[in-house]
Amino acid sequence: MQKKTFSDIDCAIAQTLEQIGDGWTLLILRNAFHRMRHFDQFQENLGIPTNTLSNRLKKLTDSGILERRACAHDRRAYEYRLTDKGLDLYPIIVTLFQWGERWYSRPNGPRMELKEKATGLPIPEVKVRNQDGNPLSARDVQVIIGPGGGEDATNLVKFQKKTA
Amino acid sequence: MQKKTFSDIDCAIAQTLEQIGDGWTLLILRNAFHRMRHFDQFQENLGIPTNTLSNRLKKLTDSGILERRACAHDRRAYEYRLTDKGLDLYPIIVTLFQWGERWYSRPNGPRMELKEKATGLPIPEVKVRNQDGNPLSARDVQVIIGPGGGEDATNLVKFQKKTA
Repeated sequence: MQKKTFSDIDCAIAQTLEQIGDGWTLLILRNAFHRMRHFDQFQENLGIPTNTLSNRLKKLTDSGILERRACAHDRRAYEYRLTDKGLDLYPIIVTLFQWGERWYSRPNGPRMELKEKATGLPIPEVKVRNQDGNPLSARDVQVIIGPGGGEDATNLVKFQKKTA
Repeated sequence: MQKKTFSDIDCAIAQTLEQIGDGWTLLILRNAFHRMRHFDQFQENLGIPTNTLSNRLKKLTDSGILERRACAHDRRAYEYRLTDKGLDLYPIIVTLFQWGERWYSRPNGPRMELKEKATGLPIPEVKVRNQDGNPLSARDVQVIIGPGGGEDATNLVKFQKKTA
C-alpha cells in the first residue's frame, strides 16, 4: 500500500486521490453505485480481504463519502450508502467506465450500457465541454492559477507556460 | 503497493484501474497534462522515489498511455508525452480535479481555473448528461447488461435490480 499522504499536496486532484485514489476503494464505490450496501456483499463480490475491506469502508465513512447506518430490518446489521458527497463522484465513476470500454472493449460489445431511466436512451460519452456544450480536448484548455492557488499550483502552472 | 491485478475482473472500471488506479500514476498523468515531459521534472515536482517513478512510467509506456521518445534537442535524453489514448483520459483528470475543488476547497477560491483557450471563458463542471445535454445523477440512470457482459457484469447488474 501507498503510505505517502497526498493530502499534504495543495492540489485538488491530490486531495481527491487521498480519499479515493486506490483501486479497491474505487471498486467499492463502483459497487455502491450499483446499490450494493452490505459488508458481506462487498466482500463476496470483490474477493477482498476482510481487513482491507473494513479499512476502506472506515476511511470512506470517515471522509463522509459513505454513511454507515443500522439496517431498517435488522438493527444489528449495518449498511453503507453513498452520501451526497459520494453521489457527487458519479462523473468520475462514469468516465473511468467509459474510458475502459473504449480502450479495453470486449469483442461482442460493451459489458454494460447506461440508459436514462426516463427515456431509455443511451447516455452519451462524458466529455469536458465549453459553455456552448461543445467538447474540448486538453489542448483547447488553458489552466491558470486561481485565487486559492499556492506553491504547488504555481509550480505546475508555470511549468505549463514554459513548454506551451 | 496493491499487488492484486484488476485486469482479471471483466469490468471496464477494473480494466481502467489496472492501468491508472494508483495515486502516483494519476499524479504523473496530472503533470503530463500540465505538459511536464522529463523524468527529472516529474521526480522533482512529485518528490517520488526514482524507482517508483521508473516503474510507473514504464507501465504507462507499456500500456500506450505515454510515449517515450528521444528529445529533439538532445538525443541522449528522453521525454514522455501523452498518446491519443492518454489524452483520452482528460475527462477523468478533470472530474478528479473538480470534485476535489468542490469538497476540499481553499478559503480564497479555486487553486486553479480552467479556461477555454479560444474564448477565455471558464470550463463548466463536467457532468453525466442525457442526449439533450441535461445533467443526470446516478439515480436517473439505469445500468443494463451489454452484449459483451460476462459473469462479472451480470453479478453487478442483477444486484442493482434486487435493491432498486
